[in-house]
Amino acid sequence: MEGVDHLADERNKADFDVEQMKIVWAGSRHAFDLSDRISRLVATDPVFRKDDRTMLGRKELFKNTLRKAAHAWKRINELRLTEEEAYKLRFFVDQPAFTDLHWGMFVPAIKGSGTDEQQQKWLPLAYKMQIIGCYAQTELGHGSNVQGLETTATFDPKTDEFVIHSPTLTSSKWWPGGLGKISTHAVVYARLITNGKEHGVHGFIVQLRSLDDHSPLPGITVGDIGMKFGSGAYNSMDNGVLRFDNVRIPRNQMLMRFSQVTREGKFVHSSVPRQLVYGTMVYVRKTIVTDASIALSRAVCIATRYSAVRRQFGSQNGGIETQVIDYKTQQARLFPLLASAYAFRFVGEWLNWLYTDVTQRLQVNDFSTLAEAHACTAGLKSLTTSATADGIEECRKLCGGHGYLNSSGLPELFAVYAPACTYEGDNYVLLLQVARHLMKTVSQLDSGNKPTGTTAYLGQVEKLLQYRSDVQRAEDWLEPNVVLKAFEARAAWLSVACAQNLSKFTNPEDGFQALSADLAEAAVAHCQLIVVSKFLEKLQQDIPGKGVKQQLQVLCGVYSLFLLHKHLGEFLSAGCITPKQGSLANEQLRSLYSQVRPNAIALVDAFNYTDHYLGSVLGRYDGNVYPKLYEEAWKDPLNESIVPDGFHEYVQPILKQQLRNARL
Amino acid sequence: MEGVDHLADERNKADFDVEQMKIVWAGSRHAFDLSDRISRLVATDPVFRKDDRTMLGRKELFKNTLRKAAHAWKRINELRLTEEEAYKLRFFVDQPAFTDLHWGMFVPAIKGSGTDEQQQKWLPLAYKMQIIGCYAQTELGHGSNVQGLETTATFDPKTDEFVIHSPTLTSSKWWPGGLGKISTHAVVYARLITNGKEHGVHGFIVQLRSLDDHSPLPGITVGDIGMKFGSGAYNSMDNGVLRFDNVRIPRNQMLMRFSQVTREGKFVHSSVPRQLVYGTMVYVRKTIVTDASIALSRAVCIATRYSAVRRQFGSQNGGIETQVIDYKTQQARLFPLLASAYAFRFVGEWLNWLYTDVTQRLQVNDFSTLAEAHACTAGLKSLTTSATADGIEECRKLCGGHGYLNSSGLPELFAVYAPACTYEGDNYVLLLQVARHLMKTVSQLDSGNKPTGTTAYLGQVEKLLQYRSDVQRAEDWLEPNVVLKAFEARAAWLSVACAQNLSKFTNPEDGFQALSADLAEAAVAHCQLIVVSKFLEKLQQDIPGKGVKQQLQVLCGVYSLFLLHKHLGEFLSAGCITPKQGSLANEQLRSLYSQVRPNAIALVDAFNYTDHYLGSVLGRYDGNVYPKLYEEAWKDPLNESIVPDGFHEYVQPILKQQLRNARL
Repeated sequence: MEGVDHLADERNKADFDVEQMKIVWAGSRHAFDLSDRISRLVATDPVFRKDDRTMLGRKELFKNTLRKAAHAWKRINELRLTEEEAYKLRFFVDQPAFTDLHWGMFVPAIKGSGTDEQQQKWLPLAYKMQIIGCYAQTELGHGSNVQGLETTATFDPKTDEFVIHSPTLTSSKWWPGGLGKISTHAVVYARLITNGKEHGVHGFIVQLRSLDDHSPLPGITVGDIGMKFGSGAYNSMDNGVLRFDNVRIPRNQMLMRFSQVTREGKFVHSSVPRQLVYGTMVYVRKTIVTDASIALSRAVCIATRYSAVRRQFGSQNGGIETQVIDYKTQQARLFPLLASAYAFRFVGEWLNWLYTDVTQRLQVNDFSTLAEAHACTAGLKSLTTSATADGIEECRKLCGGHGYLNSSGLPELFAVYAPACTYEGDNYVLLLQVARHLMKTVSQLDSGNKPTGTTAYLGQVEKLLQYRSDVQRAEDWLEPNVVLKAFEARAAWLSVACAQNLSKFTNPEDGFQALSADLAEAAVAHCQLIVVSKFLEKLQQDIPGKGVKQQLQVLCGVYSLFLLHKHLGEFLSAGCITPKQGSLANEQLRSLYSQVRPNAIALVDAFNYTDHYLGSVLGRYDGNVYPKLYEEAWKDPLNESIVPDGFHEYVQPILKQQLRNARL
Repeated sequence: MEGVDHLADERNKADFDVEQMKIVWAGSRHAFDLSDRISRLVATDPVFRKDDRTMLGRKELFKNTLRKAAHAWKRINELRLTEEEAYKLRFFVDQPAFTDLHWGMFVPAIKGSGTDEQQQKWLPLAYKMQIIGCYAQTELGHGSNVQGLETTATFDPKTDEFVIHSPTLTSSKWWPGGLGKISTHAVVYARLITNGKEHGVHGFIVQLRSLDDHSPLPGITVGDIGMKFGSGAYNSMDNGVLRFDNVRIPRNQMLMRFSQVTREGKFVHSSVPRQLVYGTMVYVRKTIVTDASIALSRAVCIATRYSAVRRQFGSQNGGIETQVIDYKTQQARLFPLLASAYAFRFVGEWLNWLYTDVTQRLQVNDFSTLAEAHACTAGLKSLTTSATADGIEECRKLCGGHGYLNSSGLPELFAVYAPACTYEGDNYVLLLQVARHLMKTVSQLDSGNKPTGTTAYLGQVEKLLQYRSDVQRAEDWLEPNVVLKAFEARAAWLSVACAQNLSKFTNPEDGFQALSADLAEAAVAHCQLIVVSKFLEKLQQDIPGKGVKQQLQVLCGVYSLFLLHKHLGEFLSAGCITPKQGSLANEQLRSLYSQVRPNAIALVDAFNYTDHYLGSVLGRYDGNVYPKLYEEAWKDPLNESIVPDGFHEYVQPILKQQLRNARL
């Protein structure tokens, strides 16, 4: 059976240009070529195999991760890869490692918050990996609230040093990746104290371990915080705990781009605007949105291919059973996730544009769009990561029992993705930030402040509150403007309803707390509107390739009408649609599912994932699922012997009725 | 700090009799005493410790499981525990093991489907564990559809034997727990063939392994199917694969209670009604509903206690931060789950009654309530397990970053619970069974068939379609009948809408397929109505103890109004409530959350779980979370050495710029 494409029939059903869709998914020809080349490079290198990963114990797994990281760095140097290519290589190695934090957080922190002088000193060391760094912010007792951090950095003018100290147990740094066993250095966030006065939280470069023998430096207690969700998954990462007992560092290791402590211990702000920090947040979160589309698309690819392979029920007279992808309940659960993967991809693409735009403005001290851009990326981070985590688990369930096997790839994909809902801003905390921005926007409408960017629709709030959809037939829901207006009207109504309820409180903060569950819903509605509108804007572009745009139109319809059905209560309460129109939308949705069906396999092929990257027996490109599942099973450690370890001590005595005298 | 109750203040806030609530939760004084006694017995026995479980490799974990199973069996015999006590002991050991299948599936299968003679032969062996059995039904290519099984049992009249055979790869038995490494016997389900004719799927007792040396018998290939979701979790179970190469068993090892094959190879039905099989299904699924309430309550207990310990944001001028349980978004996510745990507990209690009722009827050949009872348990299995799996994961997220640590107990709880959505009937397949029953009930209304049991409300369908709630103030939603009528009206409307849409199809089966997503929603609405109505019925009972009934009334309100808010679109589309009334329900819900708040800790204390059973640092009874998290971290294998294994080979060469010549 080797070499046969069991999904060939499915691929033949597609009526669009898959190769062209691959370019659309990748974003450009260049991006496609890059990913294609690097993913194959990784897939064919035996050091990067990962099929045994979930079977390794913690220490074996960690050692294996170190090996891969070293091999990756070696290949990057041997092949003289560009920064972009090196990033892609680490990406396709697909195993969380200390290098993620070194390159993704430590280096950017120095670049973003270090003075030119500091950059000149530290960056060359970091670029050559002569030092390895991590990002030590969160503490055992303090996560989202950075201002609540307890670690102190007290300036000692006598020695021109900062004394870094952990005053309490809860001030222990906790979670930073790469910290536990590997990093030699860290950017440590601590409360700055000078002349007995506090000056908020700042970053400090602190050496943690000897560059000679890797032992922790005096005053430093450091270790791994223990195992995390899943087999494999993030257990390849040494998330760490770190305590300081009055550790001294030179004054020039405070990151001083935004503010300085002088030789005399005076705290001064530099002329560099602090708003630049928000630019970094926009950057990190837009990357998370793109990662969400990737994680979701992997799960969807696995579930879609397996749904075409798997057959169950529906046989007439002992004939062949029905492919589960043909069941409407399967479609109604799977296809919205497929559509979401595309939707998140495009909104991520738009966020790239937004980030560029914000950065260019920041360079000329234009902060006018920053608040809106910040709220928008925070909200999209929240929306897409929550939907992706839930979506991966739904894909696992869509694979039935076999989705529960590690060889399906889905348990590890879920476990490794789950923290995205918490890190870089807890998703509910972020929704409330968005809600704050929405309430502020609504409250300023009367004063003639015209809302911009993604909140521009609120400028027409009166009209939107009066909006009544004129849909009469199911097909009317295919009209972009019909969908857009309904989403705008619902989002506007929720914001206004919240604002009205808030106004009943004498203390606005009390009101905000009391109504926060409603405010979070208003934020979700706003963010969903952004995703829908950016998908619709994408469809305004010139998209080459036979049938490509048509497929995307279908997916956009699925995404938006699925959401409309899910949140029907809000649309009806807003009064923008009637129950009858809601029912027509559902009818149209059913019809769109039928249009997705023949193209489903090709739509996931367009992600262009190698079998190595997918890491799933169920999601294999060739669909040759059952023989491979059977083959994988025998690799389990328990199958190394016929009679398992422990049988003679613990089972034989039961069977032989000799348990009474057995020592257990 | 040891010995201090950090949650004492929280416990003092409660205004109800917690001890009495413990009895209510347990179901009776007897049940409470039993659980209390056995759970402490297990918790204090060092063999049963489980804090290191997620750190064990597969083989170590499996050996540890065998040891616990043997020790449990030894203690059961030493203490001469009753069957009920023995079950509880295995339950509190809380580690999936081959014994679960031996006692929970193998023994019941023989009891349910074996003749008196067969029971007399096999049950004494099984009761003494001189043989260990499993339940071999599902196959690599066949799960939910039992009629699609491929394994054959062909009668050979020459030798008076059945020949058990696996004709294809996909016919390999796949998933049965206890099969992989331990079971000596199995009840194997196979297509019966005699005289060249097929007679459907039947059960056969097949010996798999030698009772001397445990090696597989000739013609049998058997092994473990490999690792599954999570660390620890179900990896303690040897789910297995099994192939038969023409394995012969005596004719009398076919389970012949319902039908027999005679010496001549004639297939005959016995006089025992086959409907008894459905009684078993009702039994298994009602147990699953009770298990759902337990699993959800564990997660809720952890998340609630930790939410009272954890503080974040909200400090004024460097003061103490706010407990996260005081945030309304936290309450709006957590309290509905707390209410669901109680709701599922009570519907499980009612299912116990239903099962007894069905069993008594079956004994006198009264099958009149069986179809309804079967649909009802199938639906409740689906509803409660889906909500529980999602709820556990939500509780994990409610614990922020620390919920991702294995020491929180939540990752393993999720991973071990997840399969409940798939086993004993995939949850979506089950919903469609419920929908079929609903459509049948609706279609027979005209012919005067009066619907009974949980479908009785459909007898008033005309009235319900006309029902318009008269709620005018938020408090009106506290009226039991107001809630009940709204849920009945919504469920009735969804069923009728589906029935009307179905009637448009010329082929009803085509219609059922096309509309299956809508039908599943109708089934969910019906099942939610059952849970709500059984909760309301519970409140009609005499419930002693200060404030106990009041607390349950609040929780019932939370459960039902939360669902109303979540499915608002359906209530509005049904026309039974207006948007304004929906908004009042939401207002009332907010007010109920405030009433739950002071009682939250006591409400989870009422589950009476030992710290051993909870298995969570975050959920500790004494709330002493941070020191214990810190302590647990150092137990990780990675912390056995300061410099981790692999550092010298793979990290040192990077730091020293000597990677080029390193062998990786």
